[in-house]
Amino acid sequence: MIRVPTLLLDEQKCRRNIKMMADRARRNNVVFRPHFKTHASHETGRWFRDEGVEKITVSSMRMAQYFAEDEWKDILVAFPVNVLESDLINKLAGDINLSLLVESVEVVEFLSENLTSPAGAYIKTDTGLKRTGVPHKDIGRISEIIDAITGQEMISFKGFLTHAGQSYRAVSRDEISKIHYETIKAMLELRSHFAGRFSGIIVSVGDTPTCSIMEDFSMVDEIRPGNFVFFDLTQLLLGSCSSGEIAVAMACPVVATHPERNEIVVYGGSVHFSGERVSDVDGRSIFGVVVQNEGNGWGDIIKGARLTRLSQEHGIIEAPPEFVRSHKPGDIIKVIPAHSCITASLMKEYLTTEGRLITRL
Amino acid sequence: MIRVPTLLLDEQKCRRNIKMMADRARRNNVVFRPHFKTHASHETGRWFRDEGVEKITVSSMRMAQYFAEDEWKDILVAFPVNVLESDLINKLAGDINLSLLVESVEVVEFLSENLTSPAGAYIKTDTGLKRTGVPHKDIGRISEIIDAITGQEMISFKGFLTHAGQSYRAVSRDEISKIHYETIKAMLELRSHFAGRFSGIIVSVGDTPTCSIMEDFSMVDEIRPGNFVFFDLTQLLLGSCSSGEIAVAMACPVVATHPERNEIVVYGGSVHFSGERVSDVDGRSIFGVVVQNEGNGWGDIIKGARLTRLSQEHGIIEAPPEFVRSHKPGDIIKVIPAHSCITASLMKEYLTTEGRLITRL
Repeated sequence: MIRVPTLLLDEQKCRRNIKMMADRARRNNVVFRPHFKTHASHETGRWFRDEGVEKITVSSMRMAQYFAEDEWKDILVAFPVNVLESDLINKLAGDINLSLLVESVEVVEFLSENLTSPAGAYIKTDTGLKRTGVPHKDIGRISEIIDAITGQEMISFKGFLTHAGQSYRAVSRDEISKIHYETIKAMLELRSHFAGRFSGIIVSVGDTPTCSIMEDFSMVDEIRPGNFVFFDLTQLLLGSCSSGEIAVAMACPVVATHPERNEIVVYGGSVHFSGERVSDVDGRSIFGVVVQNEGNGWGDIIKGARLTRLSQEHGIIEAPPEFVRSHKPGDIIKVIPAHSCITASLMKEYLTTEGRLITRL
Repeated sequence: MIRVPTLLLDEQKCRRNIKMMADRARRNNVVFRPHFKTHASHETGRWFRDEGVEKITVSSMRMAQYFAEDEWKDILVAFPVNVLESDLINKLAGDINLSLLVESVEVVEFLSENLTSPAGAYIKTDTGLKRTGVPHKDIGRISEIIDAITGQEMISFKGFLTHAGQSYRAVSRDEISKIHYETIKAMLELRSHFAGRFSGIIVSVGDTPTCSIMEDFSMVDEIRPGNFVFFDLTQLLLGSCSSGEIAVAMACPVVATHPERNEIVVYGGSVHFSGERVSDVDGRSIFGVVVQNEGNGWGDIIKGARLTRLSQEHGIIEAPPEFVRSHKPGDIIKVIPAHSCITASLMKEYLTTEGRLITRL
């Protein structure tokens, strides 16, 4: 029985999402190296294994260690090397096939001097997000990094990696398509430039919006989407998924109703949902949308029922009068969160709609 | 040695903040019932005990249980009763002096039927925040709740409680002063209205902005500020504290520098800081400000060095050219977070500037 805010996970929807993306990778004949940061769970990871996945992506050394403990043997840490964690890097490089992300000569030199077991290196390439990475047109700097890697015993050049996260700001399918093809074009040009020096340079791409909406990835070697395992309100608004594909929902106890202002107060605040938000059609920030409460799972989105404010433990649901009037303290309201990655990271565990508790990092 | 994002706690600043507020309560001859949700730590709680504090406020039953385990005997759960947690409510009501928050007749009736040990009840009163509580002018509804409590064996009426959280949206000291006096006036009127029926009705107020900025609380009975234990950027911008009073800072490893766009990428993202933000003078959202890195602690705020973007694990620091140029991967940058409550809740532990690790809920 649910007594406190609980993150529900629909295993069937989740497994369908995994299969959908694994099939897409197979059709395109590309390596499917899913990002595990969204679910961050041994058990959910095994559902990927059931689809033949052997290579994974994570966002921290700690997460790499967690999945190495569950027998994952090929892990890419898609976050710039944190040189302060060299002990853990060396431990994992000794245990598994570890790949790292580099974007500067100085970090390559640090690795050359400090790695005690071999590791692969992808060069983080910025194709427009302007978060991290070397701009794809900066061939000079990329050459310097490759030169620094070349000939090193413990570090081998694997390829170019980019995260076209600007797709999260896209406002149409056409714009996502444009980002997709521009990204691939930039990455292929980069590979061509260095193809004479190296064979088998990997081109690795893959945010959830482009991987969900685009069909054609045949020109690249590897895709790394992550959020699609659960999807969320952000992806729904981007057109990456249908509401029926979203595999997580928060179950929140009602603690007060305010029919005089069409609001319900639930137990479920920013320590559960985080402050992540999306803009609703009317431009207001919302933290989630309410779905029909159906048995242990949930149904369709309820029009006009939205999580509009959060305090540390309180959530305020704005809803149609008949919805507010039909609820009382002790009822459960289910909410699709704005951003499932951060919500899941805060909640630390999942309750499946079959009633099983799943732990995570 | 710091290797990953770490929340630093300056014990001396924190103890000074506690003493400052305890002194203010003593000067006003009011009960100091601090909110423990910000620090949520046994050890930090003991620093309050050193200042003579015996009564505390928490935001969940789980937090009440955590502090009851450290010998706190008088705990108010300042969150509307979640009837689904009646087992834990009964356990704690049997063990300690437990006070609950009610705002509807139906929840009072639920408690009357289900409480197995006595508990106190405060009526949550809405004096303008419009989050939870009965509007203070709705004497009819308040009377109904009091009538429902009256004569019940296990539940006793203690008083009226409000959280004037609208002070967080104030733009000036004058506005906070106005909120303070309006809140107290509304609460005193409410007490007067029922003073003939009950003696010793407690009036409980106290958000951090008003409790930090206002001096006069002599008309009320109890104050419950919480955030002042650490303060943060939000409080600094409200004028509740000076930068030297902020007792926590996040230490983040540098993983990349981008001098070409005056940015540094740190290990420290939304899973560490949360998505909580403040508006900077130019109207942009920022998640924190950078401070001088001084030994195990930190110094002044560095003008123009701000945490402007967050991904799950990445933080982007925008900073003056000379600051960016003087940093390299492996350096530590220290950041005052926008909101210390949520950041601390995510980080789960503190490293004191003396090098001691403090656990929390």
